[in-house]
Amino acid sequence: MAERLVIIGGDAGGMGAASQARRRRDDLEIVALERGTRTSFSACGIPYHVAGILDDLDDLVVRTPQEHRDQHRIDVRLRQEATGIDLTERSVEVRDHEHRRTYTLGFDQLCIGTGARPRRPPIPGIDADHVMGVQNLDDAEALLERAHRIRCQDVVVVGGGYIGLEMAEAFVRWGAKVTVVDAASEIMHTLDPDMAALVREAMGHHEIEVLTDVEVLGIEADHVVLGDRTLPADLVILGMGVTPNSELAGTAGLDLGPSDAVAVDRRQRTSADGVWAAGDCATSFHLLRQEPVHIALGTVANRQARVAGVNIGGGYATFPGVIGTAVTRLCGTEVGRTGLSTAEANEAGFGHIVGCVDGSTRAAYFPGATRVRVKILAEQNTGRLLGGQIVGGEGAAKRIDTLATAITAGFTVHDMVDLDLGYAPPLSPVWDPVVIACRVAARDL
Amino acid sequence: MAERLVIIGGDAGGMGAASQARRRRDDLEIVALERGTRTSFSACGIPYHVAGILDDLDDLVVRTPQEHRDQHRIDVRLRQEATGIDLTERSVEVRDHEHRRTYTLGFDQLCIGTGARPRRPPIPGIDADHVMGVQNLDDAEALLERAHRIRCQDVVVVGGGYIGLEMAEAFVRWGAKVTVVDAASEIMHTLDPDMAALVREAMGHHEIEVLTDVEVLGIEADHVVLGDRTLPADLVILGMGVTPNSELAGTAGLDLGPSDAVAVDRRQRTSADGVWAAGDCATSFHLLRQEPVHIALGTVANRQARVAGVNIGGGYATFPGVIGTAVTRLCGTEVGRTGLSTAEANEAGFGHIVGCVDGSTRAAYFPGATRVRVKILAEQNTGRLLGGQIVGGEGAAKRIDTLATAITAGFTVHDMVDLDLGYAPPLSPVWDPVVIACRVAARDL
Repeated sequence: MAERLVIIGGDAGGMGAASQARRRRDDLEIVALERGTRTSFSACGIPYHVAGILDDLDDLVVRTPQEHRDQHRIDVRLRQEATGIDLTERSVEVRDHEHRRTYTLGFDQLCIGTGARPRRPPIPGIDADHVMGVQNLDDAEALLERAHRIRCQDVVVVGGGYIGLEMAEAFVRWGAKVTVVDAASEIMHTLDPDMAALVREAMGHHEIEVLTDVEVLGIEADHVVLGDRTLPADLVILGMGVTPNSELAGTAGLDLGPSDAVAVDRRQRTSADGVWAAGDCATSFHLLRQEPVHIALGTVANRQARVAGVNIGGGYATFPGVIGTAVTRLCGTEVGRTGLSTAEANEAGFGHIVGCVDGSTRAAYFPGATRVRVKILAEQNTGRLLGGQIVGGEGAAKRIDTLATAITAGFTVHDMVDLDLGYAPPLSPVWDPVVIACRVAARDL
Repeated sequence: MAERLVIIGGDAGGMGAASQARRRRDDLEIVALERGTRTSFSACGIPYHVAGILDDLDDLVVRTPQEHRDQHRIDVRLRQEATGIDLTERSVEVRDHEHRRTYTLGFDQLCIGTGARPRRPPIPGIDADHVMGVQNLDDAEALLERAHRIRCQDVVVVGGGYIGLEMAEAFVRWGAKVTVVDAASEIMHTLDPDMAALVREAMGHHEIEVLTDVEVLGIEADHVVLGDRTLPADLVILGMGVTPNSELAGTAGLDLGPSDAVAVDRRQRTSADGVWAAGDCATSFHLLRQEPVHIALGTVANRQARVAGVNIGGGYATFPGVIGTAVTRLCGTEVGRTGLSTAEANEAGFGHIVGCVDGSTRAAYFPGATRVRVKILAEQNTGRLLGGQIVGGEGAAKRIDTLATAITAGFTVHDMVDLDLGYAPPLSPVWDPVVIACRVAARDL
């Protein structure tokens, strides 16, 4: 009998591993269990569908179940949910929602790619039907269906993380009045508050009300209860980050790590032999903090899946780790961050200095040049780059990649000053703002 | 008497050094000789003024002579040209064009920032008045004045380098018919021909005729003579690169390097004590070729000037070197290159493999996503990145900075595959095209 690989979860973590494994091993039997109705989709694109920028939700599907079947001979089983893993028997219990039956599926190798789900803190009413998150395309479909059906007018986004803010902008474009509430003193906790304030300002210009230092005490059918007031809300969007779907793995006895994500080593192996995990459900190693972390991002999921798949297929690959690079565009403002924020650097015990500059995305005299603020953190004494944050106009965010590459290389701010970067008036000032920020920090060393 | 620093040349190389030196030494007497009428300008912006994108040529002036006087107490002397350097007497012979007199100026330290000028190969007629280059704002003013006066209709650009092509596009926008002629089989010799062909295609769509494998045999008053035909030309633009203005230094006995550029060490010292050089007139060290080269770019000039100025001011700084990073935007197409092209890698004796992909600047489904081709070169066996080239739509070119940083760090294509870069649908695909190109190469190793 052929060796069987079972995949739990039909998105990036699972299917990426499946495709890579297939490339290396033609003989594997591969079964993929997906409790929803779609595979390999770009969840990050959902806000743009809500906003009406993308017409068809299925444009977000990178590879359909049929394509997986045809191109990689993967037995994709939709609406089938893994409900238990038996590590001794090496089998998965499967609930087939389509045919309302349960069966047992043996495996030789197992890859867990169950993803993550929006966090729901214990607020009264948080489990109501109109309190919705967006983690997959089925969620998105349900959300939009409801918004249309109830002729949604007032949306409250609870939590000012990336997805929450992207959904806030999307619902303004959709036609609703949107309020974002955040319990912290500033939105976007992966940025320093002074940088996040620029984003908040941009959101304000797009008629999105942002309330900070505000606790949600309860959610009712048509409003949200804050400490001193209520907000009308016929739809509530969850924007407080995600929590890994790791209950299945935990119950089976697999080791869990930070945030209860499935603990994996550098080859994406879990604590059980022949059992792998990849994507939003799994831990990553943070190259600066030098410890496992849980960072749920599409880039990380895809990279981990590739590594898991190569190893499952008998090859050798390791995932070196992450530094938390992320970009987004909100209300016309581009945002990038990498490495450690000030709070993270403090928590990790790094003494650090800061370089912060207001620069321009193009030569200052060139039409279309927009303001960009770059803030970098460097280690005290050594000058080693620890983190970077960028907020600005068109062309600002992807400059974070230069800092991400430099951090990965262990560059100091001195190394940055003479880095040979590209310059042309329509594309950049002669000294790129990321370099100027490093020069400023270098002066303080 | 105060120690005197004499600067020859009022643009980036000279004035950048002067400002830095002033910051560190308040006591220095600083005299700057500039044979033209402006200081510290962005020559790279000239094509955009010709194109009508920038109204005022003086917007390209970063710092006026008066600002240099006021802010840094630099005695800027316009229309005064250094005509000789006496290293024994430690003096400069100065021709004052304004007052038609010649005088001698002693120095304790001297910084040569004489720049470069467009190459004029020995073609009959190449020295005629209507054969013009653009290296400074005075040139640009003269060029536009002539174009208007003669109601210029037909422009021929000789040579398909960056400036030549930028000027070609500019003159199309200005309203002329433009032909580019290049003796080589493809334009843009700093790119591989297959990448340059994409640029040529873009130029063709903007009604710029590009003729390659064509030698210019002579230039007449109203036409250019090619082998088998003539081209009407009431204006001829030089686009065959530049040659350093190093005659003054050479005659004085200073060592010259490749392309007869003024030879400098890592601190920007010339072969004579207390004599420095920076900018387009000077050599740089190429980090991959590991030898001195002459690369005339604004970024390099500014970096060298900073290093020279710090050292002149009694500090310590070195210029580690260059890898030839350059970007531009031509006819709506963005171009970036860094490190070694295929021809350069061969010449330097590097065995190499290639990764080349067609990708997208944004998530493929996102509106505004444009095609981008990325080509990377990596060393055989080791996989060390040697070079990168990018041609594509909006957002393509500055991705070269990621490759430039990686090359500087000595990264291999394997290091690139798991680099933590930013992803969001409006800004990038989940795997950035520069990473995919490296993945392709990694597979071939």
